[in-house]
Amino acid sequence: MEYRPLIFITNDDGINAPGLRALVDVARELGDVIVVAPDTPQSGQGHAITLRDPLRLKKVDIFEGLDAYECSGTPVDCVKLGKHILLHQREADLCVSGINHGSNASLNIIYSGTMSAAMEASLEGINSIGFSLLDYEWDADFEPCKTHIRELMAYVLENGMENCKLLNVNIPAVPATVLKGFKICRQAEARWIERYVEGEDPRGQKYYWLTGDFVNQDEGDDTDVWALENNYISVVPSGHDLTRYNAISALKKLEAEVEV
Amino acid sequence: MEYRPLIFITNDDGINAPGLRALVDVARELGDVIVVAPDTPQSGQGHAITLRDPLRLKKVDIFEGLDAYECSGTPVDCVKLGKHILLHQREADLCVSGINHGSNASLNIIYSGTMSAAMEASLEGINSIGFSLLDYEWDADFEPCKTHIRELMAYVLENGMENCKLLNVNIPAVPATVLKGFKICRQAEARWIERYVEGEDPRGQKYYWLTGDFVNQDEGDDTDVWALENNYISVVPSGHDLTRYNAISALKKLEAEVEV
Repeated sequence: MEYRPLIFITNDDGINAPGLRALVDVARELGDVIVVAPDTPQSGQGHAITLRDPLRLKKVDIFEGLDAYECSGTPVDCVKLGKHILLHQREADLCVSGINHGSNASLNIIYSGTMSAAMEASLEGINSIGFSLLDYEWDADFEPCKTHIRELMAYVLENGMENCKLLNVNIPAVPATVLKGFKICRQAEARWIERYVEGEDPRGQKYYWLTGDFVNQDEGDDTDVWALENNYISVVPSGHDLTRYNAISALKKLEAEVEV
Repeated sequence: MEYRPLIFITNDDGINAPGLRALVDVARELGDVIVVAPDTPQSGQGHAITLRDPLRLKKVDIFEGLDAYECSGTPVDCVKLGKHILLHQREADLCVSGINHGSNASLNIIYSGTMSAAMEASLEGINSIGFSLLDYEWDADFEPCKTHIRELMAYVLENGMENCKLLNVNIPAVPATVLKGFKICRQAEARWIERYVEGEDPRGQKYYWLTGDFVNQDEGDDTDVWALENNYISVVPSGHDLTRYNAISALKKLEAEVEV
């Protein structure tokens, strides 16, 4: 019998998100699938884990014929619980996270629950891909991007990844005829220009609510933001090492100059 | 009149944490200080931000003569609110986060609210330092490390940072006589070996609670874990670019081989 790879699926928009359903549709064609996703939307949760509270897992019957669970924690909690409680006898061959409703390009990787979940699986040695479609709407049309996601997943299942365990994949929300292909990129140096909406709640307490605009400050043509603006699917090989290697030698003099 | 630098202070253990008080003690000797810290402990919150709920800020009178606020959100929320609501007319010269109760060396930077808060300030262009003492106890003795923190803060206020805006500083909990000095390092490649404690709550619902051990798998003598084990204060210049540059060329062939 042909080997069926095991594909672990999670997201940050929650177990009922249409983007998750689209990813499940694709993955079940390629292998055995297990889904563990948050029971509530968890956008912006970054690499948060639940330490002070117990976690719950509940089996749900929303994907016909598939093992699926909702979890009371963050996207990273979903991956940890999936590994230790549900998959302890078998290792996943691939983890896919998403499809996120909205971009996780550039700096957004830091804040993204979708990407943090994929990173968590990569820390466990599992090849992992986070997928995002550049459409923030809940009823975004995920149909056109499913083909590209299937192609990339099949490629990684077949060829693995070199020097890397994590891909940050963002897909422009443009017609298939306009799409130019996949582009391997670096993370753009962009930022959020933010502000807070201020108001008073019904009990007269002042509140602040975050809003903002994403601004690219990186003029390189080798970045994910450039690729997306030019109708490519951006693929950023990513990791978890935050060391700024080019600062190490510059800072070495501090060792002699700051006394203990 | 001599220029007094403005030092922004936050943490993830909460506004009442002894580690925060120790950092405030040091900072107020070096400049003007503003404190914005979470109103509840936020360990393990990583780079989480609050998107779905409004945030509250409350002025608190717990540090004599200082402006201090507790915030209902995450450590990163504290930095954003501090910048946009409290400091909008003045830029901080330095952000310090901590002193964390326990290590943020190696991979822990990813999960750490302390380090994520400092990273958030660095994204805004502010030189930022996260401090951690390798003692998880609430009543840890922060007195001995205050001298070293003061020295490093004074150095950075005087000299700035080169090629970097963020330092991850971990301090061994050893007597001053044993301490060898500061060491500029890279982030060690270590991991957590985790498991879940399983139980039933008083209502008969099954729960899972995370626990685990930190295991260093990196044999290099240039890592933060090595430095700490050898009684150095580890200083890792850090950033927010997760790109794995050495994987880009290896993956380039994917552009031709995966069709859209």
